[in-house]
Amino acid sequence: MIKQVLIGVLCGAAVLTAGILIGHFGITMSSAPSWVKDVAKDVDESLIEKFLSEVDNIQIQENLRSLTKVPHMATTAGDEQTVQLMLKRWQDPETGLDQAWREEFMVYLSFPDPKKPNKVTVVSPSDEVLYTAREKEKTYTSDQDDPEVVQPYAAYSPAGHPKGKLVYANQGKPSDYQLLNNTVDLRGTIAITRYGGAGRGAKAINAAPYGVIGVLVYTDPLDINDGLMSDINETYPHSWYMPPSGVERGSFNGQFGDMLTPYLAAKEETYRIPAENITGIPPIPIQPIGFEDAYRLICSSIALGNLFVSIPCCFILLNLNLFSSDVKLDIFNYEEKKNSSNVMGVIKGSVEPDRYVIYGNHRDSWVHGAIDPSSGTSVMLELTRVLGKMVKQGKWRPRRSIIFGSWGAEEFGLIGSAEYTEQYFTKLSERTVAYINVDIAVFANATLRASGMPSLQKIIFKAAKQVDAPGLDSTSVYDNWIQYSNRTSQANGLIPNVGYLSGAGSDYAAFVHYLGITSMDISYTYDRSKTNARIYPAYHTAYDTFDYASKFIDPGFVSHQAIARTAGNVLIRLADSLLVPLNCSDYAETLEDYLNTAVTLYQHQLQERNISMEPLKRAVASFRSAATHLDQVIRSSDLANETPLTVRRINDQLMLLDRAFLDPLAFPDKYAYRHVIWASSSAGKPTFPGLADAFANAESQSSAWDKVHYHLSVLSQAIEGAAHTLGDVI
Amino acid sequence: MIKQVLIGVLCGAAVLTAGILIGHFGITMSSAPSWVKDVAKDVDESLIEKFLSEVDNIQIQENLRSLTKVPHMATTAGDEQTVQLMLKRWQDPETGLDQAWREEFMVYLSFPDPKKPNKVTVVSPSDEVLYTAREKEKTYTSDQDDPEVVQPYAAYSPAGHPKGKLVYANQGKPSDYQLLNNTVDLRGTIAITRYGGAGRGAKAINAAPYGVIGVLVYTDPLDINDGLMSDINETYPHSWYMPPSGVERGSFNGQFGDMLTPYLAAKEETYRIPAENITGIPPIPIQPIGFEDAYRLICSSIALGNLFVSIPCCFILLNLNLFSSDVKLDIFNYEEKKNSSNVMGVIKGSVEPDRYVIYGNHRDSWVHGAIDPSSGTSVMLELTRVLGKMVKQGKWRPRRSIIFGSWGAEEFGLIGSAEYTEQYFTKLSERTVAYINVDIAVFANATLRASGMPSLQKIIFKAAKQVDAPGLDSTSVYDNWIQYSNRTSQANGLIPNVGYLSGAGSDYAAFVHYLGITSMDISYTYDRSKTNARIYPAYHTAYDTFDYASKFIDPGFVSHQAIARTAGNVLIRLADSLLVPLNCSDYAETLEDYLNTAVTLYQHQLQERNISMEPLKRAVASFRSAATHLDQVIRSSDLANETPLTVRRINDQLMLLDRAFLDPLAFPDKYAYRHVIWASSSAGKPTFPGLADAFANAESQSSAWDKVHYHLSVLSQAIEGAAHTLGDVI
Repeated sequence: MIKQVLIGVLCGAAVLTAGILIGHFGITMSSAPSWVKDVAKDVDESLIEKFLSEVDNIQIQENLRSLTKVPHMATTAGDEQTVQLMLKRWQDPETGLDQAWREEFMVYLSFPDPKKPNKVTVVSPSDEVLYTAREKEKTYTSDQDDPEVVQPYAAYSPAGHPKGKLVYANQGKPSDYQLLNNTVDLRGTIAITRYGGAGRGAKAINAAPYGVIGVLVYTDPLDINDGLMSDINETYPHSWYMPPSGVERGSFNGQFGDMLTPYLAAKEETYRIPAENITGIPPIPIQPIGFEDAYRLICSSIALGNLFVSIPCCFILLNLNLFSSDVKLDIFNYEEKKNSSNVMGVIKGSVEPDRYVIYGNHRDSWVHGAIDPSSGTSVMLELTRVLGKMVKQGKWRPRRSIIFGSWGAEEFGLIGSAEYTEQYFTKLSERTVAYINVDIAVFANATLRASGMPSLQKIIFKAAKQVDAPGLDSTSVYDNWIQYSNRTSQANGLIPNVGYLSGAGSDYAAFVHYLGITSMDISYTYDRSKTNARIYPAYHTAYDTFDYASKFIDPGFVSHQAIARTAGNVLIRLADSLLVPLNCSDYAETLEDYLNTAVTLYQHQLQERNISMEPLKRAVASFRSAATHLDQVIRSSDLANETPLTVRRINDQLMLLDRAFLDPLAFPDKYAYRHVIWASSSAGKPTFPGLADAFANAESQSSAWDKVHYHLSVLSQAIEGAAHTLGDVI
Repeated sequence: MIKQVLIGVLCGAAVLTAGILIGHFGITMSSAPSWVKDVAKDVDESLIEKFLSEVDNIQIQENLRSLTKVPHMATTAGDEQTVQLMLKRWQDPETGLDQAWREEFMVYLSFPDPKKPNKVTVVSPSDEVLYTAREKEKTYTSDQDDPEVVQPYAAYSPAGHPKGKLVYANQGKPSDYQLLNNTVDLRGTIAITRYGGAGRGAKAINAAPYGVIGVLVYTDPLDINDGLMSDINETYPHSWYMPPSGVERGSFNGQFGDMLTPYLAAKEETYRIPAENITGIPPIPIQPIGFEDAYRLICSSIALGNLFVSIPCCFILLNLNLFSSDVKLDIFNYEEKKNSSNVMGVIKGSVEPDRYVIYGNHRDSWVHGAIDPSSGTSVMLELTRVLGKMVKQGKWRPRRSIIFGSWGAEEFGLIGSAEYTEQYFTKLSERTVAYINVDIAVFANATLRASGMPSLQKIIFKAAKQVDAPGLDSTSVYDNWIQYSNRTSQANGLIPNVGYLSGAGSDYAAFVHYLGITSMDISYTYDRSKTNARIYPAYHTAYDTFDYASKFIDPGFVSHQAIARTAGNVLIRLADSLLVPLNCSDYAETLEDYLNTAVTLYQHQLQERNISMEPLKRAVASFRSAATHLDQVIRSSDLANETPLTVRRINDQLMLLDRAFLDPLAFPDKYAYRHVIWASSSAGKPTFPGLADAFANAESQSSAWDKVHYHLSVLSQAIEGAAHTLGDVI
């Protein structure tokens, strides 16, 4: 009986099992295709934890050591070495990416002539050389002795040999020359200026109309060294401060991208404008020098400038009489079209390969570039190592594709990234979820600094909360950050302050302004209560070396590690989240802030001219209401169980939001600026840039009120257009 | 025992059933969500058949009767009646759309003054009026007596009262005035021109530089009536030909969209440029007249023009001596900003509501506008009735959303559609699969005519094959068409010839040129072996009435029906097909044809100037190769079983293809033209328009070769960019 029961039970079980199997597999019509699970997959928090734990500070340190072995100015042999290094890493079978390759552009660069070094001399009326400024920076470590250290120069300064009396012109702003011109006849003079206040090239562009024939520029110790000057015990190699002979190199070009091929990728046969048609570069020779030389020159000529200069020049008086002597510049810079490489690498997305998250940094430096840009490149290489390994081991493949860009020739004007966006304009516009830029990863080791579109703010916060602050126990990067920089948001309460990408300070420029791609830039930075340095003092000098970085910027590379973890966390979330982690209501808050400022500053005067701000107010209100609605749709959706096309629809709305703010006709005088919310502005007001600039112009030129009205319409239409994209799709 | 076996079998069956049920429903993880079937659904051929059978010619006829009761020029009371009609139909609870509404724009229009009618007179030296041209067209049916029939006029002609000797200037082309100027001093003259050869406004714009002070324009019977002229037995109401007093009205504005608000939607508070800054409109008064009046004037003045004119004027010699008399124009046109309405209607998509197929036509006419535009509107209303009914009955909902647009103020310069695209620029750019324009649905009843992007060709063919040709037994629209107009395609063999949308002839202009949306325009048209009429003869006259349409253009409305079926078939396929039915290889063929022409015409001379065509050749080759690849991907995919995101990816590639050809900087002198393949061109060569124009300019102005090179780079980059979007997405 027991046996029979047993048989019965076994048979029953067998039949049941057969039934289950038939029910499960046999009725194929309703069994789910294998992709149903895949398309609904969200970011895997355990993978993020694994990623965070694998990011290694020592790897970053060793990356930096490799990258900074030799100077790697764009298109030099050193640059090629870094190209090879990137390719080797990204093509590594165990820790590399799916694919990596180089892309070349033939771009217009400017170099000093190694055979005829630029010279700055003081000459007597009989042309006797009384004093010669340094041609090179002083050597403290063997790095400065590398023959490939480029002489300090101003890229895109014309060659020339101006000679004239020296005048001190402060920061070379328009107002500086105007003031000086009240008391001094500037015609035929050489102006000496300090960095800051105006763009590099602007110091010469502003000078030329007054008849100035040459310009010198130096970094003032008050601006960079918290006043310290002595290389006996105060400056590098004793501290992070700039030695007296240190010179900031730089591009003196005011726009971004290759200047001969505006809006066109600079291929060999691409049409090039005549070089004489280039605008925004110095019309007269300009040369950067160290503060030691600058002081000698200034102190001897101080009476001429008739300006009070608070520098201790009295103590270094020279036996030079500049009242009768001239300063002479001998500039031998030349321009050349050269092939510059971007190195590209990709991890192909599993579910939405046609959606891109782009992460980039430039590779080229002025000299060894340990901080600028190799700190960022070291971080990028560590990210790709950790992510690449997971991919190669089959443990992970992101939902969306990730593109890594190691841009070339950034130092000459963000050229590699700009050419890339020109070449792939449509494809990138259509498919890019976000661009993450990590150029200088660590300026200093006090706190996070982040800039970007407001829609990215929450995901940056989320990532920063999951990363330990370097050097602090049980404090997150976020908790540390909020102590250094915060603001109160109506919707979010007290939060860290995320800056805006309204300028063209790094390779995000083309992504933000030309393509309208949601972008961010992050780094570790200063404690402003401890230094007033305009930027880390070795910036663009021969002292920006591995030794400098590892001793004074980030000993132990823990801030680098924190940036790698934070940026990588954001990257994974952007690539893997089912719902694209961009928040449109945070964008609305910024627009409202901008609007409030605009109303306060402009409404009264505009009303007097019968220009209504109501369309702008309505547009911002529409945007807010559409954003609230979309957030409500998102909250009330069970996205993991929705059709993937519904999720994609919402994701497209979020991804393409910034594109709606583009208008190629909004800024006819600004090259490649199309984003009406983030364009650069000279008015310096925390509001819509085109409106602020148009208003400032109209105040000084009454015929220009029409342009204010025009821009208000452009702006209102763009914001309304953005609101339309967030509302119900039909 | 039997009982036991029975019980056993029953138990076994019950257990098996339980198992099946558990297997099927209990293991929820792997049962398919309900949307899995929906997202894979393709176009339903039986639904198309149902649609075709329901399209009713009598309904179309009655639509036309309703639409043409009164004249409905833009913004008049008659226009408002048609707005109400559209809204009533589209909001009908049984046959309407999901939603319908109106959208207003305040646009700049031009009208004659009803209180001071424009006059054309012949006056003696003592200002005695010797002859007065007709103010209105002759009445043959009561339609012409409607007080709302607008007096013939040239919209945007300035008011003015020029008086001078009459000269005959042929078509008013630049070459016509140039030739005339060789023998006659044109200063102070009135030029009489015939329609054709040059744009309407161009006849005045070309004249002004020679000192001409006024222009008349008429439709020559040789151009419109196959030479027939007599209203006793030859012209309407005896045939479709234009009566002697018939006058073609029109907009004499050369660009599209509201002229005071370029690139901005014309809302009440939008910035408007000063009216004096408008370009492209007649600088001197111009007025259209009938050929009867024109002949009287020309015959009397023929000696002056010194041109041979082959018209039978000798027989209608008047008692006017124009050698001593003057012709005087008294033009009282005025401009006014008025609210013009678009009527919009939508059917919301079921699976991809964020993908739009747009179907549109203008609603405004010059007079009754039976053919232009009401033939198209009648067809649109019949489409929406049939589709709306299926939606309301729950029998159908398209995969993608369908948007219907009944545009306002097209006759004044495609204003309603252009403002719509300006207001919704981003949303439409991102989401629109295609735009279908059916303006004049039936010019004549011989054969189909279709124009559009080559990627649409195959779906037009497919639709045309399923529709019976009107009036022919067992012949499809396709089979009939291919007999009238065909070409041999390398890939497709002998096929009907699909034209291109390179001009701005109807509301597709803003969609094609400004937004880069894949578009088409279809109609039924002439047998060219039977008529040389430039266009159907009642075009823009007071004779374009229901009577005219139903008697002479399409008795029985069977050609209207064929257009409704063909256009509707394309519409349903665009909205319902799983794979967007756009073919990129057919686009490649056109690019290759263009390239071959360009190489033949230009390569030799370009080589001489060191301008290489290789980048263009490479770009076209890249495009071809990417298109072949994508077609291969499509062919090898089992789309119905793929993840919907894979299908979406391919569909996005196809949908966005035309967007890749946009460059807002490609045509700095052409308003709103951005599509480098289809822009208008004055060179008249079957090749890339910007290249052809730049080359033609350079031939006459040697400093302009740079612009040829520049445009070659723009063009190559756009085509390469398009190829990038078709290739592997990563």
